[in-house]
Amino acid sequence: MSEPFRDLLQLAVALAHSSVDAGGGPFGALITTADGSIVAEGQNIVTAACDPTAHAEVTAIRRACAVQESHRLDGLILVSSCEPCPMCLAAAWWARLDSVHFASTRFDAADAGFDDAQLWRAVASGDTGPQLPLRHVPVPTAGDEFRHWLEQAHRLPY
Amino acid sequence: MSEPFRDLLQLAVALAHSSVDAGGGPFGALITTADGSIVAEGQNIVTAACDPTAHAEVTAIRRACAVQESHRLDGLILVSSCEPCPMCLAAAWWARLDSVHFASTRFDAADAGFDDAQLWRAVASGDTGPQLPLRHVPVPTAGDEFRHWLEQAHRLPY
Repeated sequence: MSEPFRDLLQLAVALAHSSVDAGGGPFGALITTADGSIVAEGQNIVTAACDPTAHAEVTAIRRACAVQESHRLDGLILVSSCEPCPMCLAAAWWARLDSVHFASTRFDAADAGFDDAQLWRAVASGDTGPQLPLRHVPVPTAGDEFRHWLEQAHRLPY
Repeated sequence: MSEPFRDLLQLAVALAHSSVDAGGGPFGALITTADGSIVAEGQNIVTAACDPTAHAEVTAIRRACAVQESHRLDGLILVSSCEPCPMCLAAAWWARLDSVHFASTRFDAADAGFDDAQLWRAVASGDTGPQLPLRHVPVPTAGDEFRHWLEQAHRLPY
């Protein structure tokens, strides 16, 4: 771990701290280059933006993609005040980020009332249980969309 | 499963089909009331929107939240052309949706080249391996943000 990333992690924690003052959740994140240049910042704006997906990491990823004008962030790094939840970890995966650095852990977050443990268990098992029942209904047209996709000669895989 | 949801699932598949014609990925989703009224629609616009989180389900959730002017979608239902990926499943969880109905499965998606199996394994284990190394770096200020959060008398849990 090079020293710039320690500074960037402390900046992510400072963003989380100021997010609270702005009425948001106590989470902050940065997207940076491998040498520590900041591409985008994010704070948790779930309640202010009326967007349950607007965690700090997702917000930073979306802003970095806007800056890069790409849906991919290959070569870039996610620096987060806290260990990402399953949604944010999967978002970092889809963004093709190079790595994730975080300061506080999911256990620290749980101590502050953000208990993602049930969500981690649900996603790990692929079964969200009675809290979010999942129902597979194989309607007759299911599969048409994938056949149509595979017919496209110039489809853009991602 | 009431008949309206079969119709809505076929509509989600039709949205996935038309998404391909628009240059998007073959995925479509709806947010509906329990009696089947549509609140919002979404298609996969990852490449067009330069947003790796803009899967059909996340797009539908964001739009429904904008309509409802809330970060919560209690009482509403996610109807998706395909089984949600871990990011979308966690997004549905955070949105407090009542249930998820889907038509095609992750295996159908894999046959069309959308192989989320590695991501499912990574999220299930909480270890994204060499593809996305996770690094915990306990910098000195870590935890300040949660202490600051807990000091707020009027914090809005979510």
